[in-house]
Amino acid sequence: MTPPLNIAIAGLGTVGAGTVRLIQEHGALLAARANREIVIKAVSARDRGRDRGIDLSGIDWEEDALALATRPGIDAVVELIGGAGGIAKDLVEAALGAGRHVVTANKALLAHHGTALARLAEDKGVSLRYEAAVAGGIPIVKALREGLAANAVSRVYGILNGTCNYILTTMRETGREFADVLAEAQALGYAEADPGFDIDGVDAAHKLAILTALAFGTEIDFESVHMEGIRTVTADDIRFAEELGYRIKLLGIAERTDDGIEQRVHPCLVAHAAPIANVEGVYNAVVAEGDYVETTLYLGKGAGAGPTASAVVADVMDVARGDCVATFAIPAADLAPPHPADLDKRVGAFYLCMTVRDEPGVMADITAVFRDEAISLESMLQRGRAPGEPVPVVLITHETGEAAMARALARIRKLTAMTAPPRMIRIETFYHLDQKPL
Amino acid sequence: MTPPLNIAIAGLGTVGAGTVRLIQEHGALLAARANREIVIKAVSARDRGRDRGIDLSGIDWEEDALALATRPGIDAVVELIGGAGGIAKDLVEAALGAGRHVVTANKALLAHHGTALARLAEDKGVSLRYEAAVAGGIPIVKALREGLAANAVSRVYGILNGTCNYILTTMRETGREFADVLAEAQALGYAEADPGFDIDGVDAAHKLAILTALAFGTEIDFESVHMEGIRTVTADDIRFAEELGYRIKLLGIAERTDDGIEQRVHPCLVAHAAPIANVEGVYNAVVAEGDYVETTLYLGKGAGAGPTASAVVADVMDVARGDCVATFAIPAADLAPPHPADLDKRVGAFYLCMTVRDEPGVMADITAVFRDEAISLESMLQRGRAPGEPVPVVLITHETGEAAMARALARIRKLTAMTAPPRMIRIETFYHLDQKPL
Repeated sequence: MTPPLNIAIAGLGTVGAGTVRLIQEHGALLAARANREIVIKAVSARDRGRDRGIDLSGIDWEEDALALATRPGIDAVVELIGGAGGIAKDLVEAALGAGRHVVTANKALLAHHGTALARLAEDKGVSLRYEAAVAGGIPIVKALREGLAANAVSRVYGILNGTCNYILTTMRETGREFADVLAEAQALGYAEADPGFDIDGVDAAHKLAILTALAFGTEIDFESVHMEGIRTVTADDIRFAEELGYRIKLLGIAERTDDGIEQRVHPCLVAHAAPIANVEGVYNAVVAEGDYVETTLYLGKGAGAGPTASAVVADVMDVARGDCVATFAIPAADLAPPHPADLDKRVGAFYLCMTVRDEPGVMADITAVFRDEAISLESMLQRGRAPGEPVPVVLITHETGEAAMARALARIRKLTAMTAPPRMIRIETFYHLDQKPL
Repeated sequence: MTPPLNIAIAGLGTVGAGTVRLIQEHGALLAARANREIVIKAVSARDRGRDRGIDLSGIDWEEDALALATRPGIDAVVELIGGAGGIAKDLVEAALGAGRHVVTANKALLAHHGTALARLAEDKGVSLRYEAAVAGGIPIVKALREGLAANAVSRVYGILNGTCNYILTTMRETGREFADVLAEAQALGYAEADPGFDIDGVDAAHKLAILTALAFGTEIDFESVHMEGIRTVTADDIRFAEELGYRIKLLGIAERTDDGIEQRVHPCLVAHAAPIANVEGVYNAVVAEGDYVETTLYLGKGAGAGPTASAVVADVMDVARGDCVATFAIPAADLAPPHPADLDKRVGAFYLCMTVRDEPGVMADITAVFRDEAISLESMLQRGRAPGEPVPVVLITHETGEAAMARALARIRKLTAMTAPPRMIRIETFYHLDQKPL
């Protein structure tokens, strides 16, 4: 057996503590599967006194996380501090610079600095691994980087944020409104006190930017991700969508188009029959479509100590075995420069919910706008009759361009009968490569 | 860049031809991702004259597939002939023996000789890879061997045979009977002229035996797989199951129990809410449950030229990069000897469909049998009233032992009112590790 792989872990929050526990509990199993022992030599975290429920005896404590990068005898540094900059970035750069392998769960860091870090890792001949950064326990990074490596990928999309999926699922199951369910999720610890990162789509966008680089062999291009969160989704929207045969999901979608790479995170209406529509609660799922493999789907828990530690340690074991695949599947120098598609050129169907005063001529005004923009309507729901009172009107359009839809929306907003801003949600239709709808 | 990886391909059927096409079409992509070129140096197949729609110019033709094993200049042999013995086995043994890496899609060979072949590969310091042998394009072998390597796996199960899933899906969608749908599937080329391998569960059992070895670190133990096919499933069963909230799927299930490793392939009733229940048509899916990652699911096409070639070439690329994980995740010498669980000790719920003459006292006779065996009933469906005529009676039991159920069935078979053999199908209840039903 090869000598042990000596690792240092920076950050002992939920994931860090879970990683220590996993390695200690499964020592013999890991050694058998990696063909060498995995030994935690040193750790670093903010508060040495805190009880984390793990046994740190025999493990050196380093007050300064950065010192782990150059600490003698360390083969790989596991960065579980988090954040796009600060100590996490300094540590990863220093560790790679010192010729140590790095395993990280840090999506923000990779979304902002992934290309540069991949170059640094390759210059130094070491691995930079980040399975835990995308979709928690699901081995989707490995699947895209290795399992589907023989394919030209056309699209990858998924439910990448468990907090949003939990909120949307709970809203649907209980009929409650967003703010109410968010407050409960915060009380239960499923959502952060400052929830913007999750509910505004930033976290999903970080993950999507990483998937895009992996799937398409491009430099990370987080700045080009179109981002909309779930704050504006209402209980009505979810109910109307259900009636029309759809479920509302926050999806991250990366697609190769004739115009470039499209990256977008926003709420979507997805047909009930699509497998992704049935991924509920804190589960994540990613669909990858390749030209030979066709459609594949990967489902599992996207967060939590156990699933995330599972992904972190899988990376550590790959490092232990000396697997040498490139950070983003192809050499960093060969990653194509960003070539973002213009979202205005996207064509798709739309859901639109308007709240209008129930008065004569309103429907004629609305439908005239769509006629003028040559947008044809697939269906319309109008509920309740309450002359003079606000009532919801729901429209589903046929396939139409984003630009035309944006123009129509701008005009509809100005209609005097409109008592609240209209809400637009894109409808995503997923097909197999053989063109049978999923 | 490293020098090219020179490969030889034995077998140019659907999968072999697809593999050649993929490598030729994606040459530059594969070279970028494997960091070296993949070059097909030689091929062998039965009929040199046949038009396979692929360009074999510049590739040497070997009349004797076995000669590929020792042909000079070959780094890896890709075996796509199939079959548990014969030339496929001879070739794989000879290639490994000659110190060449082997990639195969041959589930029968691995199910019967996997342990010995893994030992041979390790003795010779070469890789034996078989992603395409299980669930076609889904990278489930890689997921279990590497992606989930940090977990103690408790259970792995799935829809492993696309032909059976297609037949069951079509029966449900059309209400037609098994024999009718099978004949159509044969005409369409979805089922073999000799369909026993698929519909009797043998193919699924081959794949399950491989998953078991990978998941639990045991020697391959195909002989212990309990096997039942789908020939006896009727349109009535499918309809009754739907009414009761279940779908019928042929599952392969491998589970670590206190008594040993349970391996079984048989039709199952699965609750509609379980993700696996919604995997339809030719799709396969595998669920792997680990102690840290919890429940993960992998879905994709389980057969066909494209998906299978995707898996074959992914293995070739791992070989090209020099990845060195053991055949069944741990060294072959460390694989635990088979320790099959006694299926009689299994506890679960059952679906039972009986065809009885509608006459007084029948239900009393039936319920008396269950009372005597202490089997409690969850629900009962009795449709149609036709005094003196045969009518179906459907029962769902609460959790009960296999042995008690077998005794009850033996007695029920002998009741004089029974006009046809009763049909028993196991109900599988899937829980997350946190004990919430899926």
